[in-house]
Order: sequence, then C-alpha cells, then structure tokens
Amino acid sequence: MPTISQKGLHMPESPIRKLVPFAEAAKKRGAKVLHLNIGQPDIKTPQVALDAVRNNTIDVLAYSRTEGSETYREKLAGYYAKNDIHVSADDIIVTTGGSEALSFVMGSIADAENEIIIPEPFYANYNGFATSSGVTVVPVVSRIENNFALPPIEEFEKLITPKTKAILICNPGNPTGYLYSKEELQKLAAIVKKSNLFLVADEVYREFTYDGVEHYSILQEAGLEEHAIIVDSVSKRYSMCGARIGCLVTRNKEVIKTALKFAQARLSPPTYAQIAAEAALETTQDYFDEVKTEYVERRNLLIDELEKIEGVRVARPKGAFYCIAELPIEDAEDFAQWLLEDFRLDNETVMVAPAAGFYATKGLGKNQIRIAYVLEKESLKRAVNILKVALKSYIG
Amino acid sequence: MPTISQKGLHMPESPIRKLVPFAEAAKKRGAKVLHLNIGQPDIKTPQVALDAVRNNTIDVLAYSRTEGSETYREKLAGYYAKNDIHVSADDIIVTTGGSEALSFVMGSIADAENEIIIPEPFYANYNGFATSSGVTVVPVVSRIENNFALPPIEEFEKLITPKTKAILICNPGNPTGYLYSKEELQKLAAIVKKSNLFLVADEVYREFTYDGVEHYSILQEAGLEEHAIIVDSVSKRYSMCGARIGCLVTRNKEVIKTALKFAQARLSPPTYAQIAAEAALETTQDYFDEVKTEYVERRNLLIDELEKIEGVRVARPKGAFYCIAELPIEDAEDFAQWLLEDFRLDNETVMVAPAAGFYATKGLGKNQIRIAYVLEKESLKRAVNILKVALKSYIG
Ligand SMILES: Cc1ncc(COP(=O)(O)O)c(C=O)c1O
Ligand SMILES: Cc1ncc(COP(=O)(O)O)c(C=O)c1O
Repeated sequence: MPTISQKGLHMPESPIRKLVPFAEAAKKRGAKVLHLNIGQPDIKTPQVALDAVRNNTIDVLAYSRTEGSETYREKLAGYYAKNDIHVSADDIIVTTGGSEALSFVMGSIADAENEIIIPEPFYANYNGFATSSGVTVVPVVSRIENNFALPPIEEFEKLITPKTKAILICNPGNPTGYLYSKEELQKLAAIVKKSNLFLVADEVYREFTYDGVEHYSILQEAGLEEHAIIVDSVSKRYSMCGARIGCLVTRNKEVIKTALKFAQARLSPPTYAQIAAEAALETTQDYFDEVKTEYVERRNLLIDELEKIEGVRVARPKGAFYCIAELPIEDAEDFAQWLLEDFRLDNETVMVAPAAGFYATKGLGKNQIRIAYVLEKESLKRAVNILKVALKSYIG
Repeated sequence: MPTISQKGLHMPESPIRKLVPFAEAAKKRGAKVLHLNIGQPDIKTPQVALDAVRNNTIDVLAYSRTEGSETYREKLAGYYAKNDIHVSADDIIVTTGGSEALSFVMGSIADAENEIIIPEPFYANYNGFATSSGVTVVPVVSRIENNFALPPIEEFEKLITPKTKAILICNPGNPTGYLYSKEELQKLAAIVKKSNLFLVADEVYREFTYDGVEHYSILQEAGLEEHAIIVDSVSKRYSMCGARIGCLVTRNKEVIKTALKFAQARLSPPTYAQIAAEAALETTQDYFDEVKTEYVERRNLLIDELEKIEGVRVARPKGAFYCIAELPIEDAEDFAQWLLEDFRLDNETVMVAPAAGFYATKGLGKNQIRIAYVLEKESLKRAVNILKVALKSYIG
C-alpha cells in the first residue's frame, strides 16, 4: 500500500475535531448542545447580497478573471478608501476566502526553510497553511494578564534569524479579541523595516471593534509599502462565510505578481460568490450598527457573567467575537469532553474550544477555553450558566 | 525590501499569459479575436442548476461541511454508481474546483523530495500545483504520431525511483484529447501495484468521449483500492466553470483522512456553488446528448479542415475538447504572437495556445499548438481558415 506524505501526517487537526464525535453523540441522546466553539455567526446576511444572487441572469456560469472580477476589485478599492486605506484595484487579488489568501501569501513569501513569527494564541489554521507550505511557525507568547496585548518588541527581536521572512498578526484577534493599537502597530512597522521582513495582517474582523476604538490597518502606516500585506474576507463582515470570498491586498508589486501565479494555477474564485460579495458592498451603515450593537451586548453579557464565576479569568475583548477564558481546572480538553459526555442542565450542555490548540508552544493554554459569542443573548446567558454550574460540579 | 520566495519565483506562468497583452492590444485596435486558446465552453449551463441558485432560500450564508454537504456527496455517489464506479459518500471530498482536488492530492501523497510521473504534454497547471507543493514532475513523452497514446510501459518503469510516489494521468486528456483504453489503464494498474505507487486520474472530461468509445475509470479497475485516486469537476461537465466545484474520490481511507486535514484548514467549499452542482445532477440525458453531438461536429469540422492545410499534422481526439496540431513552422509562440500583432483576415484573427507550455521537457512541442473547440461551428470554420491563410503568409 502506497504511503501518504510526511507533510500530510503532520497536518494539524482542528482544535475541536476530537470533540465533534462527542457532540454528535450528545445530540443523538437527545441533548441540546449550545455551540460556543465556532466562528460561524448567526447574523443574517445582508438582503442586498442575497438578492443579487437570486436575481442573477447568468446563462453560462463561466470562470471569472483569475484576480477577481474587474468591477468587484474596483469597488473593493472604494471600500478600502472609505476605511482610509488607499489602494488601487491592481493591489487586490480576490481569493476563495481569507483562507486562500493566507495560502497564497505564505507560498509567495516563504520557502520550506523559512520561519514566520506569530503572536500566540493564534487562529489555529495558520498551522495548517504553514505545514502545507512547509514553513515553520515561530510563536511569541502573548498573555491573558495583559488582555493578549502585543508582546514586548524585544521578544520578537530575539526570535528573528536569517530564516525569518515575516511577522503575522491577526487584528482584531481570533481567538483573543485583542485589537492592536496604532502604537503597537508602529512598533511592528519599525521592526519589519529594520529587519527587512514582511508584515502580514489578517484583518478579517476589521469591522468588529468596540468601545469606540477604531481599527488601524497596517496599510494606513506610511513607509510599509513593500512590507505590508493584508488578508481579508467577507465571511464575518457580512455573515457570508459560505460565499468563500476573501482577498489579499498589498502595494508590493512583486508579491502581487507572485500571488497571481498561485491564483492562475487554480483558475478563478467562485462566480456566484463574487456577485454576492460585490452586492454586499452596498450594505448600509445601519446593518453594521445593528450588528455591532448586538455583538457589544453579547460581549458585555458574556464577560460580566464569566467574571462572576469564581476562579475564572477573562481577557476583555475589544474586537472580533471571541474571548479566551482561563478556568480553575487543569485540562480544558478533558473538561470540554466531559461537558459533552456527562454534563446536562435541563438537558442542555455547551461545546467550547479548548485553547491549547491555539498555542504553538506545548503546555500553554491548557486551562483556557475559547468562547465565540455567536449565539443570541438568551442562549448565551444559559450557556454561561451551564459553564458555571458545570465547573462547580467538575471541580467538586 | 523583503524578497519573495524561491517557490514563488519558480511558479510557472500559464502558457498563454505572455500572449494576453497582445490579444488585448488587438482588441483595442478594433480586431475581433477568435479564442481557440481557452477551456471555457460556450455551452449553456443546465437550466436546473441555474434555477436552483436563483430559487435558493438562504438567509444566513453559512460554511458548509468541510468535506462538502451530506446530500451532495450522497447524490454524487449515486452519479458514480450510474457510471459503474461504486463508491460511498465517505470516499468523496468536495473541493473548490478540480484544481483544489489536485492540490489536496499532491499535498496528501507527496513531499518536497518526491516525484510524480506524468505523460506529457499535460495540463499546464499540474506544474503549478507541483511547484507549490514542492514536488518534482517527471515527464514521460507521448507522441503526436500515436495520437498521444500511453507511452510504452517500459518508459514509465525506467523513470521509477525510490522518490516516485505516483503516476498522474488525465483521461480524456487536456491538451491531447486522447482517451486511454481499458488495456492501457490495466498496464498502469499493474505497474502501480508492482511499484507501490498511487495512480491519480484527472477525469474532469469523463463525459466527453466520442465515436462510441466509453470512458473507463481507474476506480472501475479491481485491485486498485489503495492506489487509485480520481480528481473530478463539474466545470466542464455542466459548463459550470465559474461554480468552482470539484471533488476527489478514493477508497483509500488514509488518503481521505489526510486530504480532509488540508480541507479543514480552508474551512469549506462554496455554498451557492454546491447548490448548483447538486441540482446539476438532475440534468437529463438529452442535455448531454446534445452537447456531445455539438462537440463531435465541431471536432470533425476542425480536424477535417486542419488536415486539409499543407504541412499540418493533427492528433485525432477521442475525448475532451482539445486537439494538438503540429504546424510547418519552427516556433509556435512566435507564430501565435504574430497572429495577434500582425495578422488580420476581414479584421479577424485567432488566439491559440503554444503547446510548448504543456511539455515539461525543454524543446518539445515548439512547433505545436493546442486548439480548444469551444466555439460554435461558424466561428470555428472561420478560425481554421484564418489559420490556413495566416500560415501561408507567415511561412511565405
Ligand atoms: C482569523 C481568521 N482568519 C481567517 C479566517 C478564514 O476565513 P474565510 O476563509 O472564511 O475567509 C478565519 C475564519 O474563521 C479567521 O478566524
Ligand atoms: C485537465 C484539467 N484538470 C483540471 C482542471 C481544473 O478545472 P476546475 O478547477 O475548474 O475544476 C482543468 C481545467 O481546465 C483541466 O483541463
């Protein structure tokens, strides 16, 4: 029997993959499982996007341009301009989700012997894209005590070697909910210029910032023209995860030219989804205002209730829709499994993501979980109460 | 300025990429360009697929399952059963085009130091997927004199080393139009069993076979359970290239498990497109009959007319919708560019794909072009006539 690749053997599994069978078993036994474990919002997709697809007049569903349709890229440039990011359509390659943008970026900037520095905890699929590109992820620890702020810049400096090609950040962060300040980003800007590195920012949660704090993009920072690459996506912004449309944006022409070759190999991004994404740009401000209000209320409820539980420590998120909570237990993976297998409150339980899967350093995050606040408030409240009662019972 | 990756530098460009600016310039100067260079059919997408998307009732455009929706995979298994390929839904992973299936397969079966043997000329993007996976393509020459039949099996044997992980074929072939016989496939089956290799068949043109010859799939061949992997796509079958739906199918559980990890990293295939692809399975036989009749007529017209041109040699295609023609010239790339820059007949010219880009061996195919018969007969006739007149003028 022919054997699979080493790379394939080492491809990481999703942090919640092991729990999925337990969640399925719980449902089979009639329990209701409240999902705090996924980044799939329950928010309605903007009607204008849904309608555009329903009213499409396509007869021959043809490949689009490799780099994305001309009109969509032009309008995207307009969207960025409104966000004070001044780029042209030629600086944008439309991709199949932010996921594909991440692959293209890694392939374009790093070889098998290279390293990319990423503050941990980080979006677990960065590991997958790194493994499939053969690139090594070098983590730098950010801490719950500081709300997962940027680690001291000296920590980055210590890790930079001739093999380092880039620093990758997620802003606002999944799983941390942390929003980097302009000052933090300027520190990163200085170091990538000094050490001649790329600075890649995954800004798929750009729109989700709270408490009146504004998002600052690395593409707004002068002097980073050759360094800055952003990864973006319509998935969360318009609750359009199933569209599979994202993009990469950079003023570095060599990167665009190179990423375009990766894009050519896969021909084009999906056509229907581009129609939806282009129409979604017409979404009015009141949609975002409503969504933001909803997320802020959820976050407040979640954090307030979590903080009331003895022994629980939470990092207060300023963006995205995740938070990391430290629990008064040893092994969050065991706890998460126990919740699904053995615990019920009024026949309900919750599924959470053990946070260890978001750390590259072995042993970190073992007593932490990631909670996605993608449930409406009533359910979210019940979910936190379940966690509270369950913790007591698990510890006791 | 940070530098791009070596891998990125070596990513191949599409064989027609250099010609695109010349085609655009020709159009700007008012000429009509007949495109014989692309694999984008002009055939209408089945109405049932278009309608399914127009009538969708999605409110929250959510991620689908990583491996593709349950119902679609179940129905796909039914489609294969009708084609005498007996697999279950669990043997199928739905991908973003056949393109993504090719990436997942390469990543799952081969590491950077490995080799994959492919009969040339072959679909040029195999080079892109190999380069981005770091895998080496080892070509084995097939020849226009034999219609691009399978090269003698000893030629494969000579190339197999401990580094070899797979033989990859395209059946029916792009760019050759060749349809492998059951006997040829059984020879390949024997050698992959003997040498413990994977046999990957790109069968995206399965439905397009002519002259009453039936397609034989490697998944129909007994004893290949652990070896055979097929790459498939709805792009050409239903003229749905823009959907971006394909799949990989194998009975090898390790390969499925591994490919699923690559799939998880990118979350899910596009949701609207899966609706279209699932509905397309309801397409009635008369659609395919009509399409096939159309392609056969085009092929006959094309080949008959090409054969009338002095000095032109053509391989008679038995499947897909491409043919390779050898021209009485030295440099098909120069000729293709000249057609776009300098030649007009009644203000029209043609764009063809120089075939050298489909060979991995330097120097091969320099006097060949690939023609895609994706134009209706009237235009196709004019296109061949343009080629004829142009050749005379170019040589003379
Ligand atoms: C931080 C981050 N980046 C990228 C992605 C990829 O999303 P998509 O491929 O749907 O755009 C996600 C999805 O959860 C994410 O959380
Ligand atoms: C031989 C072959 N394989 C795979 C593909 C990929 O097609 P898609 O990604 O649209 O399924 C093509 C497209 O032209 C092709 O010709």
